[in-house]
Amino acid sequence: MNATSSNRLYSLVEQAKKFPPLKTAVVCPYDAVSLEGMADAAREGIIIPVLVGVEARIRAAAEKNNISISGYEIVPAQDDKSSAVQACALAREGKVGALMKGSLHTDDLMGAVVDRNVGLRTNRRMSHVFAMDVPSYKWPLLITDAALNIAPDLETKRSICQNAIDLAKDLGVAEPKIAILGATELVNPAMPATLEAACLCKMADRGQITGGVLDGPFAIDNAISPEAVKIKGIKSPVAGVADILIMPDIEAGNIIYKGLVYLAASGAAGIVLGGRVPVMLTSRADTPAARLGSAAMAVLTMAGQKARQSSK
Amino acid sequence: MNATSSNRLYSLVEQAKKFPPLKTAVVCPYDAVSLEGMADAAREGIIIPVLVGVEARIRAAAEKNNISISGYEIVPAQDDKSSAVQACALAREGKVGALMKGSLHTDDLMGAVVDRNVGLRTNRRMSHVFAMDVPSYKWPLLITDAALNIAPDLETKRSICQNAIDLAKDLGVAEPKIAILGATELVNPAMPATLEAACLCKMADRGQITGGVLDGPFAIDNAISPEAVKIKGIKSPVAGVADILIMPDIEAGNIIYKGLVYLAASGAAGIVLGGRVPVMLTSRADTPAARLGSAAMAVLTMAGQKARQSSK
Repeated sequence: MNATSSNRLYSLVEQAKKFPPLKTAVVCPYDAVSLEGMADAAREGIIIPVLVGVEARIRAAAEKNNISISGYEIVPAQDDKSSAVQACALAREGKVGALMKGSLHTDDLMGAVVDRNVGLRTNRRMSHVFAMDVPSYKWPLLITDAALNIAPDLETKRSICQNAIDLAKDLGVAEPKIAILGATELVNPAMPATLEAACLCKMADRGQITGGVLDGPFAIDNAISPEAVKIKGIKSPVAGVADILIMPDIEAGNIIYKGLVYLAASGAAGIVLGGRVPVMLTSRADTPAARLGSAAMAVLTMAGQKARQSSK
Repeated sequence: MNATSSNRLYSLVEQAKKFPPLKTAVVCPYDAVSLEGMADAAREGIIIPVLVGVEARIRAAAEKNNISISGYEIVPAQDDKSSAVQACALAREGKVGALMKGSLHTDDLMGAVVDRNVGLRTNRRMSHVFAMDVPSYKWPLLITDAALNIAPDLETKRSICQNAIDLAKDLGVAEPKIAILGATELVNPAMPATLEAACLCKMADRGQITGGVLDGPFAIDNAISPEAVKIKGIKSPVAGVADILIMPDIEAGNIIYKGLVYLAASGAAGIVLGGRVPVMLTSRADTPAARLGSAAMAVLTMAGQKARQSSK
């Protein structure tokens, strides 16, 4: 990751510092990477870790990696799955405002999170959003869903849009512009992504999605290049200046987000939204900036949620 | 497009100059962009244009845009669709070795090209390949199919792989490494792209795809980043060093190719392969380097085809 990209992800941390630190259940922090991610965010003063897992393993990993966990609450649990359930329980009881993945499998954590009985479900579908720092484009560019929903149906895409709009606002984008992507800007009966894009726009017209300006379908150049928009003659308040790119499916999302990270020196900080509290799904390949960015997004999300509730 | 990317697309032209110029049916060259693309390639000596369309319109457009067409054969046709059919007939009769799209709609051109009676079908499915110059990656990186096949089935993906392998060899890649992409490197029953990737690998084991080393499924980082491969612990001759990226569908292909062009300063020259002759599907947004690159790819493809036939 180059300096440019890191800098813009770090700006999230500066924004998050304006709010009180967020109590965060760190689930199974048994390795260097998850302990360091947690410790970095705590050192910046944006989270207060609550460590959930097998106490002996947590203490051994902390000692081995020379990371101090004194002063952090430890909530014991027996194994990976029960740690995930325990972390969800803490969130349901209002004792933590976010979950952070440690060294357990994503499936074990998310299995608990999406469980109808013990999980964090709300009336929205959950979705994953990346805040991307693409050096050649304005900051932030949100890409969703590149990690959680494999082949989202229309109802899930509605939540994907709404979750991303709320996040964009929480990150400081006053009126987010949302581009729904396919392989073309034309509604094409042979391309379901373009039909769903049309439907999502109409949902926004009818107030089923609120808070942003939606348009689509677009090919990605129509969404992010004013020059390409001009050549195509597209008239749209979103075209060429999108803040949010809605992906047709997980393959397209995953390929473009990783393509931008690995081939365009971009930074990416991700978070799962739409549950009672946000969930940070960090991976081993994440940079320190990506981990901190995710934690900052959790803080800004919960601050935004609180503000919206108190304004009701 | 920056200097780096242009330079590497232009290297195709240098390669193509080693072969005799290719007679190319330019279909409906009625606007500045298609006339210039044709004229540039002719000036470089890599094609000999045969202009197909309404003669009066061709002559008027050439005069208006101050482009000399004297010395070029004109094959008259009544309208866009019959021009496309006429161009296919020239190819079937061996009078031209390539088709180049002018100002007609892609659907009108490709409708004739894929027609079972008048078109250019062979025992392979046709597919589109982009030769990408991504400044942060080795040259060339082939991406396919980002433009023609919407949701290719396994048989079509087999042709997509074979067409790209043959092209890579024609461009000078001795043993092409092909990465079949999805959203993960694991075979996941919920993700059809990963199942098809596994099947394509087995097809290669059985000689149903030849001439390259295939592996997949991969997430894109596993395909192009040796560092990501190391972190994941993946063992594969393709991982991290792929020459060809096979896309799960047109949405993923279109989004990553345009994402790299518009956000990573990449160049892209495209061509349709798998027919009797290659077809250049240029678009208004193409750079001069992209147009020349496409023409050069057509030359190199036909030279490769000829060499393969004479070696049989």
